[in-house]
Amino acid sequence: MAQSYKELLNNVKGFIFDVDGVLTNGMVTIYPGGELVRQMNIKDGYALKTAIDAGFPVCIISGGSNIGVRSRLEGLGIKDIYLGVHDKIEKYHEILELHNLKPEEIVYMGDDIPDYPVMELVGIPCAPQDAVPEIKAVSKYVSPIKGGEGCVRDIIEQVLRVQEKWNGKFYAKFD
Amino acid sequence: MAQSYKELLNNVKGFIFDVDGVLTNGMVTIYPGGELVRQMNIKDGYALKTAIDAGFPVCIISGGSNIGVRSRLEGLGIKDIYLGVHDKIEKYHEILELHNLKPEEIVYMGDDIPDYPVMELVGIPCAPQDAVPEIKAVSKYVSPIKGGEGCVRDIIEQVLRVQEKWNGKFYAKFD
Amino acid sequence: MAQSYKELLNNVKGFIFDVDGVLTNGMVTIYPGGELVRQMNIKDGYALKTAIDAGFPVCIISGGSNIGVRSRLEGLGIKDIYLGVHDKIEKYHEILELHNLKPEEIVYMGDDIPDYPVMELVGIPCAPQDAVPEIKAVSKYVSPIKGGEGCVRDIIEQVLRVQEKWNGKFYAKFD
Amino acid sequence: MAQSYKELLNNVKGFIFDVDGVLTNGMVTIYPGGELVRQMNIKDGYALKTAIDAGFPVCIISGGSNIGVRSRLEGLGIKDIYLGVHDKIEKYHEILELHNLKPEEIVYMGDDIPDYPVMELVGIPCAPQDAVPEIKAVSKYVSPIKGGEGCVRDIIEQVLRVQEKWNGKFYAKFD
Repeated sequence: MAQSYKELLNNVKGFIFDVDGVLTNGMVTIYPGGELVRQMNIKDGYALKTAIDAGFPVCIISGGSNIGVRSRLEGLGIKDIYLGVHDKIEKYHEILELHNLKPEEIVYMGDDIPDYPVMELVGIPCAPQDAVPEIKAVSKYVSPIKGGEGCVRDIIEQVLRVQEKWNGKFYAKFD
Repeated sequence: MAQSYKELLNNVKGFIFDVDGVLTNGMVTIYPGGELVRQMNIKDGYALKTAIDAGFPVCIISGGSNIGVRSRLEGLGIKDIYLGVHDKIEKYHEILELHNLKPEEIVYMGDDIPDYPVMELVGIPCAPQDAVPEIKAVSKYVSPIKGGEGCVRDIIEQVLRVQEKWNGKFYAKFD
Repeated sequence: MAQSYKELLNNVKGFIFDVDGVLTNGMVTIYPGGELVRQMNIKDGYALKTAIDAGFPVCIISGGSNIGVRSRLEGLGIKDIYLGVHDKIEKYHEILELHNLKPEEIVYMGDDIPDYPVMELVGIPCAPQDAVPEIKAVSKYVSPIKGGEGCVRDIIEQVLRVQEKWNGKFYAKFD
Repeated sequence: MAQSYKELLNNVKGFIFDVDGVLTNGMVTIYPGGELVRQMNIKDGYALKTAIDAGFPVCIISGGSNIGVRSRLEGLGIKDIYLGVHDKIEKYHEILELHNLKPEEIVYMGDDIPDYPVMELVGIPCAPQDAVPEIKAVSKYVSPIKGGEGCVRDIIEQVLRVQEKWNGKFYAKFD
């Protein structure tokens, strides 16, 4: 691909994130009833909210299903939350159609084999530092930051900075 | 500024702390109902209590709101707990007036963009080691310790040591 | 032993895992009623499910007992879950008989002294990076990964790759 | 002191441990009602149980108070659990009398200022790697392991090995 990394980021019009290992560190706390409880990062939350406020569709696709996770993500203003998804490719195509987006306009960040098929299709596949080797190999950008520790903030902030949509007045001072 | 770092600390008469990423490591556990549960550090708690016992106003300003956090901080003796705050600058000015303090007498420790506007105004802006770059750039002191791992203890202990208010009899032995 | 490590893995027909320090990082959260709550890793979960789908008996033997852990492991499709086990050797022999397996066909991963007696008997004793020295000394493979951080994924993935049962189409691309 | 470290350990007849920052990593999870929930390490638990089985008095003194912590420690067979203690020195003298022990026969592991007065009195004061500087300075042994990560196991195992009471048959093989 002849395009530079910065040019790629300039094309981005939407984000799709996996949950476990991306928005979380991949650990689940096992409640007495077997329910799986996750941890997320406030710094990621700030970036997700900023992207939505800047008008980007932000979508979540996860094989897991959890009412708490949905509630947290809705609280950040995310509307496209698809949990318990078995066919991530089908959902990906729905998202493209729903938001009238092209593959090269999409950042998808995933960390494990179930993300692989979608990441072959999407324009800008990304991964946290601790993704499995297969996922890192197929990614155009591997964050230096691990899942749950701010890798989502990292890629959102980079896209919004390139497009001059990151925190208005702060942008000029730091970039 | 011609003043040395030690002189700055000698001027301190009050502390203001952010919660997420400062008193916590920035992670939130997402309960089934979507409630966000935090973790704090007992070593920070000891320092907060010591500062209050030494007569310092210790104030908490957080954009988040959580009944458990309030209960924990009240248990340490903190009275000025402002949660769910959208305009941190307004609250900052209220604190100055309430405690009759000047900006150069205040330590404020924050870690992310929402802390930035206040940190431009306060006399001694500080940050944990893992604050975002913008916040570290505006800080007069960046702790070598991460959020939730004792950065609050670090700055409180430094101020109280300079002012010879840290643990009476132990002070002489270790400093 | 004249066999190479790869030959050993080729012989594997079943897996046995300890829970604390192997499927978890060895920490337990102490609930108000004294109940112990564990954390597990989604990447390990993916590997456990893949091994079961590939037809391997996957067995869990733990001295601890916890209804949430059982529920989580059952959700991954594991049927042989033995919790609250005081005599791991007896249970090990039952598993051999139940699944008609020989010692040299078994991977057992443990991390602490209670695993030692079984690990002397099993064909391929393994350990996470942070197992106690006695266990590492008796192991034929010590994962570079700590308990709860993916050591279970590591050994399962290695066995399935050697036997060409790891993720079908992905296998060809990455190994 | 002319005695070697190994001689000191040979004298040990009882253990006293602080909770926060020693049996835990110093973090507390803040429940919605403000209750503080701790995490402990299964490897420490194994060592505590082994020490008790070998006949050592094992005592817990903590300024904090928590019903879950009590339940967990009782489950390991610990009988001397003193929580919510404000005067650790008074409790220390009670323990000496109750078990007919002399100061030089006691290991005490603590991590922060409230442990300091007792650690000046006890024969073998110890600390985890991440104790505060004052505590490390007064300690005869600083474990290379952090609080909650196995520092309790470290000191118990060392004492029991020197006294040839660590895991009978395994002892011969590994030491």
